[in-house]
Amino acid sequence: MNNYEIAMNSEGSVQLQNENLKNIDVDFLYHFGIDNKTTDLEKTFGDVNFVVMGGSEGRMENFAKALYNHLKDKLPNLDPKCAETDLAKKGGRYVMFKIANTLILNHGMGFGSLSIALHEILKLLHYAKAKNLTFIRMGTCGGVGQEAGTICITKTGYTQLIEPYFPYAACGKVIKLPSTACDQTIKIFSEHVERAGLTFAIGNTVSTDDFYEGQGRTDGAFCHYTSEQKLDWLRELSTVHNVINFEMEACLFIASCNRAKVKSLCACAAMLNRLNGDQITSTKEVLGGYVDKLMSVVIEFVSSPLLEIQK
Amino acid sequence: MNNYEIAMNSEGSVQLQNENLKNIDVDFLYHFGIDNKTTDLEKTFGDVNFVVMGGSEGRMENFAKALYNHLKDKLPNLDPKCAETDLAKKGGRYVMFKIANTLILNHGMGFGSLSIALHEILKLLHYAKAKNLTFIRMGTCGGVGQEAGTICITKTGYTQLIEPYFPYAACGKVIKLPSTACDQTIKIFSEHVERAGLTFAIGNTVSTDDFYEGQGRTDGAFCHYTSEQKLDWLRELSTVHNVINFEMEACLFIASCNRAKVKSLCACAAMLNRLNGDQITSTKEVLGGYVDKLMSVVIEFVSSPLLEIQK
Repeated sequence: MNNYEIAMNSEGSVQLQNENLKNIDVDFLYHFGIDNKTTDLEKTFGDVNFVVMGGSEGRMENFAKALYNHLKDKLPNLDPKCAETDLAKKGGRYVMFKIANTLILNHGMGFGSLSIALHEILKLLHYAKAKNLTFIRMGTCGGVGQEAGTICITKTGYTQLIEPYFPYAACGKVIKLPSTACDQTIKIFSEHVERAGLTFAIGNTVSTDDFYEGQGRTDGAFCHYTSEQKLDWLRELSTVHNVINFEMEACLFIASCNRAKVKSLCACAAMLNRLNGDQITSTKEVLGGYVDKLMSVVIEFVSSPLLEIQK
Repeated sequence: MNNYEIAMNSEGSVQLQNENLKNIDVDFLYHFGIDNKTTDLEKTFGDVNFVVMGGSEGRMENFAKALYNHLKDKLPNLDPKCAETDLAKKGGRYVMFKIANTLILNHGMGFGSLSIALHEILKLLHYAKAKNLTFIRMGTCGGVGQEAGTICITKTGYTQLIEPYFPYAACGKVIKLPSTACDQTIKIFSEHVERAGLTFAIGNTVSTDDFYEGQGRTDGAFCHYTSEQKLDWLRELSTVHNVINFEMEACLFIASCNRAKVKSLCACAAMLNRLNGDQITSTKEVLGGYVDKLMSVVIEFVSSPLLEIQK
């Protein structure tokens, strides 16, 4: 059985693992400001097939606009206001847009912020009876042996202590859950990247709690190791563990999708090659260009199946 | 030696623990979009004494406006635009305002987002040569045996596995750093809370990576324990460990301030008593009222020393 089969259940819908939810009359998704009583979740979100997430609000707003512009002439029934309607506005914590079959939301930075968004979006899509779901994290990262601009696609998300699972704390006890992404989704996505003529790498990703010491940077407020010790560690990650990049979410993102039995993909644009330095010194325009290219590929990926149906 | 003496160094300035920074020509605080070459940090931030942080952008924007309104008639030299000028706008990740001696910024949710903000704000204030600093986290929390509206003041921040330190991962190895807050700052702050006539508690805070399972909620997407197991755990936290609340940042916040030898305080308004349930069901107005009251006390706390000088 490959990862794709493991990740999918027979109906292709979100599999929540919580018997207690059956006893809740109204489930208030607090951080989105949405509940399953005053919103008809099935009507509003039942046709979702893709969930695209990323750290910053601004990036996800731009993505929503770009996807809308890509689809508006091809899908005549598309609501002209969909890219301006923030569905999570009442919560005051995240932004959320729905463009045709794709739900778009930001998850902030790090595991804490992502975990809240994932719990609530998985519950929302479960109540909505959405099927055949793929979750995509579209982020930025520090490349390890990968030059700036490279699209780094995660095979397995590692913890900052280089463990190939996510350690969930549940009621004070640790549960270790596998964090290897869906092979088939990686294959299809990387074909899109190749067609777009972009440089990419498939390998393992270290997801840390901290951008500085956690990723072995020497330019944080605190640092007790030398540049040589840092480089030894980075080279070991690359050669022994096939690590291609650092970021702060992939390990939890993939583990949670596996747990809910939905497909997942993490693709991040490298902002620098950490073997050459720590500080991100490229201009905002250059960095923005890397993200824009990744965005274009994700747009192709999520809209292809939809446009295929229209033909 | 009490915590206050431990936390403070002789000059009262931020003590960075990173020799490598001496070799950096320009330090670009990437997530704030500020560097120490194009901004005169000493001129702009040298007079800061208080740093007030909290999760959401909106709350910190409101706090900046409220502090400005409190001070504007008393401090004639206050820049009328200070509450509207987001100093971290270029970074696109956080908001930051400076009102007289107080720097105000949001830190997002969870350790990952907070750690980035802390590294960069500690470096900024070190370069600025700011002295006699107190860092305050003003948040919301789930009370444990504390009713909604109670101001929960943290003595020691615990991990989600109930350890009284923060485990920093640095270049793949764990360093455990103490997370007990400054006694004297707690004392002064709680006198302000008392004068304002608000209910408060001083005790330990469990800071988790996750709002749902990590805090023993039964209403997340996943849950393998029963309500009885949850309640047993919560009662044990309360009776054995003197835990008064859950949130997602205090343990790292206090540990980092201790490490940088600046004073710290975590004060959070309880949104509910977790012994009575998991879902936050009070109206937005009621919850906002709890936060507004906490905000008023923090305003008194940071502005009292300033107004004392003016007399």
